[in-house]
Amino acid sequence: MVFIPEIEKQQSEEQNTFQLRKLKEVIAYIKANSAFYAGHLNAFEAQIENIRSLSDLQSLPVTTKEDLQQHNWDFLCIPKKDIREIMSTSGTLGSPVFIALSSNDLERLAYNEMLSFHCMEVDENDVFQLMLTLDRQFMAGIAYYSGLSEIGAAVIRSGPGLPALQWETMKALDVTGLVAVPSFITKMLDFAEEQHIPFRDFKAKKILAIGESLRDDNLEPNALAQRIKSKWNIELYSTYASTEMQTAFTECNAGKGGHHHPELIIVEILDENGNQVQKGEAGEITITTLGVEAMPLLRYRTGDIAKAYYEPCSCGRNTMRLGPVLGRKQQMIKFKGTTIYPPQLFDVLNNLEAIKDYAVTLSADETGQDKLILYVYTEMQDSDCNQLIKPVFQHKWRVVPHIIYCSAAEIQALHFADNSRKPQRFRDLRN
Amino acid sequence: MVFIPEIEKQQSEEQNTFQLRKLKEVIAYIKANSAFYAGHLNAFEAQIENIRSLSDLQSLPVTTKEDLQQHNWDFLCIPKKDIREIMSTSGTLGSPVFIALSSNDLERLAYNEMLSFHCMEVDENDVFQLMLTLDRQFMAGIAYYSGLSEIGAAVIRSGPGLPALQWETMKALDVTGLVAVPSFITKMLDFAEEQHIPFRDFKAKKILAIGESLRDDNLEPNALAQRIKSKWNIELYSTYASTEMQTAFTECNAGKGGHHHPELIIVEILDENGNQVQKGEAGEITITTLGVEAMPLLRYRTGDIAKAYYEPCSCGRNTMRLGPVLGRKQQMIKFKGTTIYPPQLFDVLNNLEAIKDYAVTLSADETGQDKLILYVYTEMQDSDCNQLIKPVFQHKWRVVPHIIYCSAAEIQALHFADNSRKPQRFRDLRN
Repeated sequence: MVFIPEIEKQQSEEQNTFQLRKLKEVIAYIKANSAFYAGHLNAFEAQIENIRSLSDLQSLPVTTKEDLQQHNWDFLCIPKKDIREIMSTSGTLGSPVFIALSSNDLERLAYNEMLSFHCMEVDENDVFQLMLTLDRQFMAGIAYYSGLSEIGAAVIRSGPGLPALQWETMKALDVTGLVAVPSFITKMLDFAEEQHIPFRDFKAKKILAIGESLRDDNLEPNALAQRIKSKWNIELYSTYASTEMQTAFTECNAGKGGHHHPELIIVEILDENGNQVQKGEAGEITITTLGVEAMPLLRYRTGDIAKAYYEPCSCGRNTMRLGPVLGRKQQMIKFKGTTIYPPQLFDVLNNLEAIKDYAVTLSADETGQDKLILYVYTEMQDSDCNQLIKPVFQHKWRVVPHIIYCSAAEIQALHFADNSRKPQRFRDLRN
Repeated sequence: MVFIPEIEKQQSEEQNTFQLRKLKEVIAYIKANSAFYAGHLNAFEAQIENIRSLSDLQSLPVTTKEDLQQHNWDFLCIPKKDIREIMSTSGTLGSPVFIALSSNDLERLAYNEMLSFHCMEVDENDVFQLMLTLDRQFMAGIAYYSGLSEIGAAVIRSGPGLPALQWETMKALDVTGLVAVPSFITKMLDFAEEQHIPFRDFKAKKILAIGESLRDDNLEPNALAQRIKSKWNIELYSTYASTEMQTAFTECNAGKGGHHHPELIIVEILDENGNQVQKGEAGEITITTLGVEAMPLLRYRTGDIAKAYYEPCSCGRNTMRLGPVLGRKQQMIKFKGTTIYPPQLFDVLNNLEAIKDYAVTLSADETGQDKLILYVYTEMQDSDCNQLIKPVFQHKWRVVPHIIYCSAAEIQALHFADNSRKPQRFRDLRN
């Protein structure tokens, strides 16, 4: 039975009223308990008094990634002995941040992912294989694990990598669902075809796809999603989450963006000047956590650029959805007046079947201009591949990237440079 | 506050009475619910009727690793939809076995490790770093994780490997305790000395040492334990556990063997003919699980050879303790009439400071005799190292091993051959 919390079925006005009440509780709580927010909100007494609606949030200061990095433990609102777990951000941009969680925070995570799996119509009959790590203080791994426990599904902690072992386990244990990085699924499919593994006869029916977008700007399947679907008739559910916000937004069957759970988080979408955008415009996802005890955040700027969708969803949830992350604000690439985000590059490259794997770096050339290098693994002749890639870039962005051809292993090494927990296709070396 | 269950403070007669009652429940349960045991116990109605004491267990048939491998799912006693997690054995010997767990089984695991951490006097003020994987369906990882949650300590899932990152995390988060493989601790200490990391100023006070014994036959610290203690003033607690038995035996401060928890498991020590040994003699640990719902085991022969200790323990627990695993029955090495188990070899090699790392393989020579090869990484001259190793072997076992000198990386590759989750210092290639 699919569970939808009452609040998610209510009208947006009722959701807003609920969130406004929770917001006031959060503000009082962090002022009283967080050394950082006591100072950060010190000069904002009047504005706090005057909050009458969620849009009044704009009168309060934002919290940045740098705030968290520089004052990490000043965010803590509970005694140290009440910390049940310390997780960390992946440090994709800058140094990692530690996120401490209380027992209730861990339950909140489990509740959140339980809702994600309900969005996917997972139930106690499902057998889920987790193809991501639960090590390295990674929040996602344990969040999915505990969410599936709440659902009552069977869990298999298989971890990342090792396509042969993953297929064997899926077969041996009649696995019905996966949690996986979609580009790893494309690798598994290549492997299965090479090895003649009859994966289409297996029982897997759905994938919770993490870490990479599966939809384009119009919520249609992007090249990566198409590449998977062209080989395998399996349902793909995209999700958006981050360690700092301790919250995930996961798609339902309608596939119209990741569902907002209003009992867990307040979302604002901000423009470059820090103002809330008009409904439907892209902007920076900025969040205020609800129900977080150890390290709550007020107006935290995630750096992720996306659009919000407000039309009623066919699934029965009346909640806003977040579209794919169009890019990270800090990873914006400026080319002769054109703005590109890495996911747009990935989509073009994923679309070219001949490109088996790739990585992208961005650096500054002698004149201070952005310089893009593509590292490409292909079985084609280099010159043929050049003729494939260059016209597309020329046409779309009027630039020709520098291309370096590599082995599969070299690309892998680039993905996991700096011992990152997740493959990093893009690295920004500008400073 | 250290928690000791009432049953563990009672006299052994009372513990036996309790276990006898539980045993009868288990037998009735597995006969009714496990396809394997329905057949396995079919001809033993009279013996079951006549069970009057724990020693009457001897009238029932044992369960072997091969039974589990060949009839894996016939052991299942619950509907598939009630399975919450599927773990697997590491497959150190033969093909891996899947162990399914119900929700109650997961709670039983957490309870067991909570008792382990109480043996170590861990409490909610502790911060524990888990230097083992929670991936690859590994039971130990999630068992320690959930046990620490029960205690209320803070957990850091750092995962295996990466000494630099481990030390950084320990320092940054004021870690007070570790769960780690002891030979990895020796590597971390070598690294810390090379890099001048002031680890003695860190807050870590205790290590739950998994996967390798720390004591010799007389319960005194073995070479591995001495090597760690000579460099670092830290408490070491040894533990014995396996996936199949879903139970761990962990030392208290007295360090006199791993404590038996009579509410969780019945232990027999069997001789080569399958008879219970005299108290204090070494034999094969043979277990019957109590309170396991999904895949309970009756008289399961673990293959591990150890001694049981029954004298009252100074910690206040009145329970039997298991000494170090002297060896695995299947890994017994016969040399000109002498019997050697791999841990004895390890102890000799750990004792030689000049040997930085090693692996051991056992194969059969042309005449069918056991042939032992040592792979050694040292910074010494090969000939000097030969002169160090050979006399010790000659003296102890009247044999001279074949020695092959390798790089550190080559030894590592041997440890993780077959993608094993744990480093394997010993490989048996006899058939």
